[in-house]
Amino acid sequence: MRLSKYFLPVSKDVPADAAIASHQLMLRAGMVRQNGAGIYSWLPLGHRVLRKIEQIVREEMNRAGAVEMLMPTLQQADLWRESGRYDDYGAEMLRITDRHERDMLYGPTNEELITDVFRSFVKSYRQLPLNLYHIQWKFRDEIRPRFGVMRGREFLMKDAYSFDIDAEAARRSYQKMFCAYLNAFDRMGLTAIPMKADPGPIGGDLSHEFIILADTGESAVFCDKALLDIPAPGADLDFDSDLTAEMEKRTQYYAATDEKHDEAAFEALPKEQQVAARGIEVGHIFYFGTKYSEPMNASIQTSEGDKALIHGGSYGIGVSRLVGGIIEASHDYKGIIWPDAVAPFDVGLISLRPKDDAVATACEEAYVALTEAGLDVLYDERDERPGAKFATMELIGLPWQMTIGPKGVEKGVVELKRRETGETSELPLAEALAMIKGGR
Amino acid sequence: MRLSKYFLPVSKDVPADAAIASHQLMLRAGMVRQNGAGIYSWLPLGHRVLRKIEQIVREEMNRAGAVEMLMPTLQQADLWRESGRYDDYGAEMLRITDRHERDMLYGPTNEELITDVFRSFVKSYRQLPLNLYHIQWKFRDEIRPRFGVMRGREFLMKDAYSFDIDAEAARRSYQKMFCAYLNAFDRMGLTAIPMKADPGPIGGDLSHEFIILADTGESAVFCDKALLDIPAPGADLDFDSDLTAEMEKRTQYYAATDEKHDEAAFEALPKEQQVAARGIEVGHIFYFGTKYSEPMNASIQTSEGDKALIHGGSYGIGVSRLVGGIIEASHDYKGIIWPDAVAPFDVGLISLRPKDDAVATACEEAYVALTEAGLDVLYDERDERPGAKFATMELIGLPWQMTIGPKGVEKGVVELKRRETGETSELPLAEALAMIKGGR
Repeated sequence: MRLSKYFLPVSKDVPADAAIASHQLMLRAGMVRQNGAGIYSWLPLGHRVLRKIEQIVREEMNRAGAVEMLMPTLQQADLWRESGRYDDYGAEMLRITDRHERDMLYGPTNEELITDVFRSFVKSYRQLPLNLYHIQWKFRDEIRPRFGVMRGREFLMKDAYSFDIDAEAARRSYQKMFCAYLNAFDRMGLTAIPMKADPGPIGGDLSHEFIILADTGESAVFCDKALLDIPAPGADLDFDSDLTAEMEKRTQYYAATDEKHDEAAFEALPKEQQVAARGIEVGHIFYFGTKYSEPMNASIQTSEGDKALIHGGSYGIGVSRLVGGIIEASHDYKGIIWPDAVAPFDVGLISLRPKDDAVATACEEAYVALTEAGLDVLYDERDERPGAKFATMELIGLPWQMTIGPKGVEKGVVELKRRETGETSELPLAEALAMIKGGR
Repeated sequence: MRLSKYFLPVSKDVPADAAIASHQLMLRAGMVRQNGAGIYSWLPLGHRVLRKIEQIVREEMNRAGAVEMLMPTLQQADLWRESGRYDDYGAEMLRITDRHERDMLYGPTNEELITDVFRSFVKSYRQLPLNLYHIQWKFRDEIRPRFGVMRGREFLMKDAYSFDIDAEAARRSYQKMFCAYLNAFDRMGLTAIPMKADPGPIGGDLSHEFIILADTGESAVFCDKALLDIPAPGADLDFDSDLTAEMEKRTQYYAATDEKHDEAAFEALPKEQQVAARGIEVGHIFYFGTKYSEPMNASIQTSEGDKALIHGGSYGIGVSRLVGGIIEASHDYKGIIWPDAVAPFDVGLISLRPKDDAVATACEEAYVALTEAGLDVLYDERDERPGAKFATMELIGLPWQMTIGPKGVEKGVVELKRRETGETSELPLAEALAMIKGGR
């Protein structure tokens, strides 16, 4: 992508109403534009990151055997009356009346709707287990939206719903999601710690939040230091195997948000193992048994020919929130530092003197070579000062910067910089390309 | 994908409330489930088609130089008061009040919102031309939603917005979209005919609808037969060249929807060139000049240092509507016939006897070989009657069916069938694979 043909409205000014780093940086880097309280447009750079995160989540859900579909944003109020949540949900639910005076709402979550889909079609235990997910915009009418996309009103969420014949089978579905989440966050360059959590309005008796640590986190979290170093299960995990051990590798250690915090248990840990920090919730999983299948009468025929209520779970990842969360976990005073897997472009290519023919030729050659190697390149060929170009690249935080100017062209080299470390090398284009491919 | 692990609730029954073929077939093939008047869940099979169409549209927009972003579904009423459309739009606009009693709406289109984004950031002619697009859910509160996803209330649309310094530059942007649309529809296996159209509530003085012909089309259309045979510009088109001739190749011929129909002009055509048919609108493009920039004060600095109102156009493709439109244009009495590029899977693999070890082994081998060749395969390994399996495959309309049974295994062959023609061959797996790859 040539920057002159892109839309990247960066700004030097720190916005007055943005209280945390990710919000400030997303505005400054031209990633989002606020269109109302807690409602954002995703400008091209932000949109790219959103889609990269979405795609990682999708791939890890598919790997775990979940099946993608898509539910609408608007729902009928009647379904929520069946479950009893229409009145319970409170003012955070955006209630809507259509032209025929029918009560509708903008879905804040989808347990009712998916249970309705399920009960319409699935009649036999032979069709189980089943895990259906979608990635769709939700709305929660927060009384005080803040922190940019971290606590917006309209937000993009991946929510999955598992259906099982009994509690034991439901536990296996829960474990699959537990492991899939570890892999998904790991691929985004995040260490997400599962913590016992309060189920809140979703209900149920088993629930974990996945928390990443960041100084600006919304809540206090407490955990054993050992949790920071356990590797994710990885792509080779067999999701059809018994995942109990993989889950217990983590649940054996103390970890809790302040809601569930047990001071005595925490203090019993060796001092050097105690981590008391701030955390950001990026995922939340629930097992809630028959909480929805009972009022909504979602039952199936068992192998013995009886009727049984299905056992359910739901599993959320805050896709749009993660964009902010990753920035909170990875930035410096100059700007964002994108982990490779979620970066909007892999390489920023900077021409130091676009009007110099030799430089322009070398830049075009590099642009073609990088693109043909399968890399996403943002090529700054504008007639601007080098200082402004460098500042923009530092701000938007692409993993690699390649700079080409008259001196380098004379010597037959480009300058390659890793954003994360600041390390710089002068080397021929082919070697720079090999370094980028190797570092991914 | 193994069918036993998929979610494909097919049905033999023709739904009573579905009046047209695409609606009936989408329900029967388990592609969608209605969740309310004009509101649908996209079940896994339908979701796959939706994403394939979305991706073709995205690629063709990018090729034409448009830049993707994403605007929210909900908008502030105030922006629509600025343009004057808040009151004009009528009951089709879904109006919403949030917990703080602020007037909002579910976007039926985005001219106001994108103009607000534009005017916030773009100040100079040097940043033009600019074409920003998004693919997002919209809502229009149709008084009588019908025909399934063809006239739903919540629908997925690609809408692009061009910004130019003057009318002449805006015309070039319009021509780019005109050509990009021809390419996008062509890739979906559709012949879309551009017809002069009424701008309706978008406004402006230049507008084309893109219409595909189908007996169940919503409106009468009239055109010169020559238009059915002009090839799309294709991937090699240089979008920076003068596209006037490419556009005039079509606009030289008579083509109009009934709103704009000129009976005398049509009757002046030779009888054998007159096509009077039914059509489905799948895209609509508009040039509206300063209709939005004037009331919303979206101006930029020209190269002479003056201020000038920008000239705008907008360009819509009905992504979710296309799923129904393609089925209307391509089905038979047994079910859907997907064009290759939008098919939910490339191949349906049918095991005639899953419990026979030799058949199971041959099927697994075929499944692996097809998948490794980069094909999307739906593998029916369920213990069901062959007749039911064939009926399902015919109904869901994958381009190729590969059937493996005991006799074929003995002879070392598989049976390969092309859904579109019904042609069947018995041949070794490797040759079948080559035929599929060649036919794509």
